[in-house]
Formats: sequence, structure tokens, C-alpha cells
Amino acid sequence: MATPEITLDPTTKKLSIIGFSGDFDKLVAVFTLATGAASVGYEVNLFFTFWGLDAIKIKQGRSPVGKGFLPKVFGIFMGGLKSAPVSRLNFGGISPQIFRHLMRKNNVATLEELVDAAKALEVNFYACEMAMHILGIGKEDLIPEVKEVLGVASFLKMSENGQTLFI
Amino acid sequence: MATPEITLDPTTKKLSIIGFSGDFDKLVAVFTLATGAASVGYEVNLFFTFWGLDAIKIKQGRSPVGKGFLPKVFGIFMGGLKSAPVSRLNFGGISPQIFRHLMRKNNVATLEELVDAAKALEVNFYACEMAMHILGIGKEDLIPEVKEVLGVASFLKMSENGQTLFI
Amino acid sequence: MATPEITLDPTTKKLSIIGFSGDFDKLVAVFTLATGAASVGYEVNLFFTFWGLDAIKIKQGRSPVGKGFLPKVFGIFMGGLKSAPVSRLNFGGISPQIFRHLMRKNNVATLEELVDAAKALEVNFYACEMAMHILGIGKEDLIPEVKEVLGVASFLKMSENGQTLFI
Repeated sequence: MATPEITLDPTTKKLSIIGFSGDFDKLVAVFTLATGAASVGYEVNLFFTFWGLDAIKIKQGRSPVGKGFLPKVFGIFMGGLKSAPVSRLNFGGISPQIFRHLMRKNNVATLEELVDAAKALEVNFYACEMAMHILGIGKEDLIPEVKEVLGVASFLKMSENGQTLFI
Repeated sequence: MATPEITLDPTTKKLSIIGFSGDFDKLVAVFTLATGAASVGYEVNLFFTFWGLDAIKIKQGRSPVGKGFLPKVFGIFMGGLKSAPVSRLNFGGISPQIFRHLMRKNNVATLEELVDAAKALEVNFYACEMAMHILGIGKEDLIPEVKEVLGVASFLKMSENGQTLFI
Repeated sequence: MATPEITLDPTTKKLSIIGFSGDFDKLVAVFTLATGAASVGYEVNLFFTFWGLDAIKIKQGRSPVGKGFLPKVFGIFMGGLKSAPVSRLNFGGISPQIFRHLMRKNNVATLEELVDAAKALEVNFYACEMAMHILGIGKEDLIPEVKEVLGVASFLKMSENGQTLFI
């Protein structure tokens, strides 16, 4: 049976990702999907929430984020891209280094390069309002590429008629 | 270039979530997305499976669920909303408390409030037949808001033409 | 109010899953969704990446995969279906066995049976090019059912107009 000719609505070429995880390997997945899609013309929307906010903080490294004591406790563990743990095999923090080494050795873009590529490809960065409230993170703590701080409803509306992933 | 006026099919305003995780932060994500979407008129379908079933058990607290010895082993670790661990930083079980504190302090709804809001907003709760079999959980162990115990195929059919997430 | 008769575009009955996790319970979820959808006529596309590649390796068991020293380190921990850990309660590796026991006892298909069923139902298996590069895995290391080694963009294109999940 022949597949009928499909006329795609232009709005369907859209990929939206809710970036919840702060794990190194999952962040690599987020940015690989984002840059892969953007490079073939997709509109890509990344909505960072909870641990994922770690990927779009200005201040990288294990330093406190936000105001007050408790956000600090989280800040110390949310160390940004350089110290993001791997979701699975994280033997004493060595795994991300092995990954980086393998990525470099095999000429695959590293996480930082993927993030830079996403910026260059005009991937849209958004941050989750509620998670920022909970974790005590302000707009000024985030990289300038973050277009807007949004609530869930706005993000879902923006993602309609495309593919939406939770990572 | 002006974006063309898009007439949405009414069926597209639909959010369906496969709630697989029993982690506190991921459950907060499930119910934040569910209530956020429902409050702007989406039809929301939550399909709880595996550890996610923990969120819709009647009997909360670390008590055995289901019949037989082995389900008990799991039941003790599946302690319901009050004892759900955080997916990442769970230092000796303290993290969910910190989260709760931060949520309270910053006037964000707590997990229990989000679940109540989901009920009030008529979010649809479904439970996964297969996972209930595996874990020895019966319909009578689940909150009355659970509309139906479903298989995968029925849930996917119900989710068509909307956004579907696996959390 | 009567629900209007909806004429589905044939292309919408499609389920695509990015299989990122190598955890036992999440692999059970991937294959339960895949076989459930395929059995009611969905086109199902599985795209294995990172730890998920473990599910489609020929050589099962804790043995090194790929060439070179560092991939070996990962290979030892990526032990295939028989040794896949459970995402949550993995007390000394006993949990997958408990799961298997419960699945068997309650007449639910085991993971291996689900994988076989997926093959029989002509679920499409794809492998992620970039992850294979990083982890030093070649096409020859994968089961023959893997139709193609793909990049992200090709997979997203293939998944359009269906439901796409990241697991």
C-alpha cells in the first residue's frame, strides 16, 4: 500500500524538551537532540526546570546559587556543567571525565560545545518559574540566552503540534 | 514573517503523562504539569505505572502493599507521597523535607496540595494493569479518583493527538 | 455532549521511543509500550542510545563491548539484559531477580520475552550513531534486528506526527 503524500503543517517541525535532569549524560542527550533538530530546521524550545536549571546558570562550578541557607545546600550540589554527574555509573565522579575523554577521542562534540552550538543555532532557552522560586534562583543567575521565565501552561502552549520530551 | 492563524483541533489540547517514577521531585513535576495544563483547559490524563503507582495508593506511609511476601518487600520501600525520595540528592532522606520547606517558604504548592488540585481540576487518573499485577496491587489499594485500570494500548489510544510525556 | 467522530490521519498511529536508560524497569517499560502499541497496529520505532544500547547488544552478560580500554570500563558495567539494574531499589543487585520472579509468578512476560515479542511484532529497532561512537560500539556488536544506525535528525523526522517518548 502506498503511503499517501503528507502535507505537513509548518508548525509540526518543532521539538520541545523539558530539561528536568542535571545529569551529565542526560544533558548531553538534551543538547544533542536540540542541536540535531535545529540543524535540520526545527524550531527547538528548551524549558529548564529543577536540576536542569543547572545547565543554564551563569556561574559554573560548585558554588552556592540563590539566596538564603537552604538554596545554598542545593547550590553546592548543583555544580553546573563541569561537575554534572552521570545518571548511572558515577564511580567517585570519574565517569563524566571518561565520557568527556571518549567524546574528545572520538571527535564528538563535548557538552560545552553542544551548548554553544545550541546558542548558535538559535535554540530557544526558557526557564521554569516555579522551580526557580523553589530553588531560590533569579533571572540574573541565568545565562543571557534565556529568553523568558515561563510557567508550565505557557510552555505547553508553545510546544503544541510538535514533539515534546521530558528528559 | 507573520505566523499564520492556526485553528487547533479541539483534541490537540491534551496532555498525557506516563507517571513511572516514584521520586519526590519527579512527582512534583508530574502534578505541576498536570495542574498547569488543566487550569488552562487541557484534558489531562495521568497513567501511573511501576513506582508511580505509589502516588495514588490510599494507604500512605511505609507499609506493605499487596499480597504475598515479595510485594511486601517492595511495599516497604514504596512508602507513598510522604516518604518519596528525591531522584538526585537524597542525603539520608533529608532532601524531600528541604524541598517541602522551600516550597512552603516560597509559597509554592506542596506535592499533596498539587495532588488535591489535580483532583479538583478533574485531571484523569489511570493505573497500569500490568504493573499492578507485577507489584501485587489491587484496584482497592488505590485512591477512588482512579477512573480505570488500563493496559498500554488503551492509554496510548486515549493520548493520541496530544502531547505525551514519560516521567 | 457527544464527542465528534475523529478521522485519524494514518500517520498518527505511530509510537517512537528514545531508549536512553539501561535500567531493568525502564527497559520493561520501553518494551511493554512497544509491544502493546504494535499489537494494536501502531508503527513502533525504538531508537536506542547511551545505556539503552545495552538492550540490543548481541553479546549479553558482563563482558567488555567495543574497542580500547575506556569503552571496556563501561562494557563491564553495561552487562546487557540479564544484569540490567533496577532504577530505584537495587539492593545488591537483588531487585531485578525479584522483579523477574514477580513477573513469572503473575504470568507477565519477562523482559527477554517482551524483546522477542517486539521482534515478532516487527517493531523497528534503530541505534544512535553518536552514542555508538562515544561508547566504541560497532554495528556488528548489535542484534541483527537493528535496521539502521541513525542520527538524531533522521530519527526525529521518522517520529513526526506520532507520539514520541524519552525513557
